[in-house]
Formats: sequence, structure tokens, C-alpha cells
Amino acid sequence: MTKILSGKEVAAALKDKLTAEVDELKKQGKVPGLCIVMVGDRPDSASYIKGAVKRCTSIGIDCQVETFPEDISQEKFLEALDRLNQDSKINGVIIMRPLPDQISEDALKYAIAPEKDVDCFNPINVSKVMSGDEDGFPPCTPSAVIEILDHYGIEIKGKRAVLIGRSMVVGRPLAMMLLKRNATVTICHTRTKDLAQEAKRAEILIAAAGKAKMVTKDMVNEGAIVIDVGINFENGKMCGDVDFDNVSPIAGQITPVPGGVGSVTSTVLAKHVIKAFKLQQGL
Amino acid sequence: MTKILSGKEVAAALKDKLTAEVDELKKQGKVPGLCIVMVGDRPDSASYIKGAVKRCTSIGIDCQVETFPEDISQEKFLEALDRLNQDSKINGVIIMRPLPDQISEDALKYAIAPEKDVDCFNPINVSKVMSGDEDGFPPCTPSAVIEILDHYGIEIKGKRAVLIGRSMVVGRPLAMMLLKRNATVTICHTRTKDLAQEAKRAEILIAAAGKAKMVTKDMVNEGAIVIDVGINFENGKMCGDVDFDNVSPIAGQITPVPGGVGSVTSTVLAKHVIKAFKLQQGL
Repeated sequence: MTKILSGKEVAAALKDKLTAEVDELKKQGKVPGLCIVMVGDRPDSASYIKGAVKRCTSIGIDCQVETFPEDISQEKFLEALDRLNQDSKINGVIIMRPLPDQISEDALKYAIAPEKDVDCFNPINVSKVMSGDEDGFPPCTPSAVIEILDHYGIEIKGKRAVLIGRSMVVGRPLAMMLLKRNATVTICHTRTKDLAQEAKRAEILIAAAGKAKMVTKDMVNEGAIVIDVGINFENGKMCGDVDFDNVSPIAGQITPVPGGVGSVTSTVLAKHVIKAFKLQQGL
Repeated sequence: MTKILSGKEVAAALKDKLTAEVDELKKQGKVPGLCIVMVGDRPDSASYIKGAVKRCTSIGIDCQVETFPEDISQEKFLEALDRLNQDSKINGVIIMRPLPDQISEDALKYAIAPEKDVDCFNPINVSKVMSGDEDGFPPCTPSAVIEILDHYGIEIKGKRAVLIGRSMVVGRPLAMMLLKRNATVTICHTRTKDLAQEAKRAEILIAAAGKAKMVTKDMVNEGAIVIDVGINFENGKMCGDVDFDNVSPIAGQITPVPGGVGSVTSTVLAKHVIKAFKLQQGL
């Protein structure tokens, strides 16, 4: 019987733990703060922000959203970011992307204070993920994958983990995080020659290709753990990168979409903000 | 018949190309400069420096070696580094490691100017290697591996590349560099369960484990390309991580030790210094 790895369950358990941590901090008069920065008005960003604010607030984090006009200059934006970097009440900053053309991501990523960079935008955090330095902040999505594996007691050490996708927000950092946990890691992508053969070797298969239902049943080994990071829409219905209906009978354990990895990311964001707060306070 | 991939041949060809580049620059009165920094007196560092200076000088690069006493304070060392960062005649800086205990590598790596950091010490360059941004400087050893593959026209795209070793100076950055070149990349290490099975799948096998002759013939597929990054000593004799005598009849192409990857690194260092010079000069 295939076990469903419920992101909601993971998020609920993590939320309880984090809420208790924040309650402890509040007893000492301390409150972690998050600022989400949005430029312009993108419906997908707005929807993410709504969920993140709701989640973080429910955990006890002070949340604020800074919205800037679509035509803000880079100079003004960098000034605003500098103000957030200086603001001692804000411990974590997340900048919604994509950004309008006049703003260079390259300039921003160096400008965000690495100790407040809770979603791994600054190269210093990218480097820490690569070197396995756990003082840094990996992006929230790969952290959510690790949370799910850990919550369900799935051993990573010594396992063959195969990733499909090599983005800087999921594939590459997750490869480094699984490596840090002593998995043998294979990174596949669009240029991989026999993807089915590679994927079928996985004990832990991570689909992060951004292509609806591209992981089919012939690509999954009997009993494999399948983690679906994809969020796609097909005929208006959300689906993952995994053909869930056909793959789930073969997989040993599998995350659904929705209700899988995506359900954990905003709680992981809260975790990162609390971690940032504690590091900044020397706690 | 197994083809020997000669590092010496690669280095000679690269040297000719770089010497011509520096000659061109010199006609315009421009000379790239390198500074190698050593603390204390380590025979292995001294030997590396001697080779690097000889090579870079022969290519036309201005080389200087700054030697500091073993007991230099971190403050003094950071001051010296700042001076090198500011010195417009120095385009590349390489700091020999390991460093004495009183000097924190963590402080140094952030202090070295990323645009002069020709051996990938600064996190900004680590991050660029991870994201595939070719404006940065990967460490010289993985760059040497890529030089060898390119020199011999070995296609990387779509190939199954398997790395044994996950260090920050070879395994991890090389994994990212091979990924950038569209290989399907597997990273193995001491916790990998069936290393022979993983290694045998490689079309390009990279041995960077730091363990003498650990890659045995049962780990290599017929016709595979075998790149040996190891430098070990057995009974006073230099050898690689690959059991060359027994593996070479099986491999399609193989680098020897000595005369393989290690013969290319100092020429790659020169390449990085010239690249740094050109970037700094906006050429």
C-alpha cells in the first residue's frame, strides 16, 4: 500500500514546534519579524504572500508587506532594501521575483543582508548551501523537501537520490543538501539522455522539472520514495511534475500535489525567520 | 588501444595560447600580475609556489610571492590582504592553505576581493560556480579537468559523469561545472553504498577521493574516460586515486599521475589571472 507523504501533516507538526518556540521568545519580550517585498502587482505573488503572511502570523511572527510601484527605480529600491537591512525589528526579508526589467537581480542579490536573506537570494547563502554550512539559509522549497523526508523518518544517508531539474531554487541546492546528508546524488535535466533509466535507479526521486506529469510510471522503481516539487496547471487544475494516478501504485511513498511540498514552504519560511532572529540575537 | 590524456600536452597548448594573449597585452603596455601569499614555511606550499611562479612567469605574468611569519595576527594578515586588494598591479591573489590556527579562513574568504580571487576562495565565486555564471573563478583543479576534456574534444553534453569525492576544491565545483556543460552528474563519496556499481555507469569517471589507487578495474566500464585528480604518495612514489596499471587497459582514455590533471593546474592559474586582468580592465 502506497504511503502518502502529506505536506499538510508535516507543516502542521512543524507549525506546532515553531509556535512553541515563538511563544518562548515572546515570554522574553522578543518577536521575530518578516518583511515580504513586492514590486508591482502580480497575482501569483499576491497569492503566495497571502499564504505566507497568514502562516507566519499564525506562528506568532510579525509580518509586514512592502509594496513598491512597478516603475520604481533600482536606486530607490536599493535604498528601501538598505532600510530593511538596517531595521532591527525585521529579521527576515524575502523579495518576490520576477522583478521588473529596470531592476537588476544581480545588484539586489548582493544588497540583501545575508543574515536576513531567508530564501537564499544572496550569493553568500548560495555558497553556504554548496559548502554545507548550516548557518546559512537554503531556499524554502528544498528545505521543505528535507522537512518532509525527516518528518516521515526517511533515511537519506547512503540512499541513491535522483533529481530531475537543476534550477537554482530547487534542483541544485537540493542536490547539495542531500549530499550533505550523505545521499549519493544524481542530477538529471532536459539534456539527460535516458531519463527513465536514471530515474528508475532512484531510491529517492525528486521531480523538480516544472513540466506537468512528466514523471511517468516507467520512470519509477517499485517502492521508491517520490517527492513532487512541481506546481503546474492542466485544464485549470493543479498538478505536479509526477503523473500521480499512475505512479502512486508503484511508489512506496509519494507526495501529492496539491498537499505536498508546496504546503510546507510557508512554514519553512517561518522556520528560517525564527532561525534568522536567533542568529541575529546570538541565541 | 587506450589513449593517454596527457596533461603536459594540454598545458603546453594552453601555455602557447596564453603567452600569445599576454604578448598582445604587453604591446599595449599592459601586464597581468599575480600575488601568491604564504604564511609560514610549508614544504608542499613552497613546491607548489615554485611551479606556479615558474609557469606564470614563462607566460609573461608578473609574479610576486608574499611570505608572512607563521605567527602573524589575523588583523595584520587582513591588512596585508587589503593592500593586495587595492594594488592595481595585482590582478590575481591566491592564498596558500592550510593557514595557522590564529587565522580564520572564514574571515579571509570574505576579505579577498572576488575579482582577484583566482582560485575560488571567496563565497561569491563559489556561488558563481554553482549558478553557472562564467564571470567567476572556479578553483584551478576542476578547471584543469575541463581543459583536458576540451583539449581532447571529449563531448561532455549528455554524458553520464560520475565523480568520486565531494570536496569544495574539486568534487562539488566540478559537479556544477559538468552540469553547466549538460552532463548528467552523479556525486559519490565515502557513504555511497555500492561505489563500484555507480562508478561503472560512468562514461566520464572523475576520481577525486584523495585515496591512493582506490579506483580499481572492477569499477570502470569498458571504454570509459577516466580522469584522475588524486595526488598521493605510496612508498615515496607519486600515484593517483586510480589503479592506473590495471584500469588503463579497460579505460578508453585516461589521465596518468604524474603528468595528468596536476600538470595543468598552474597553467589554468595563469589563465585565471589573465581573465581577471581583462575583467578588471574592462577588456
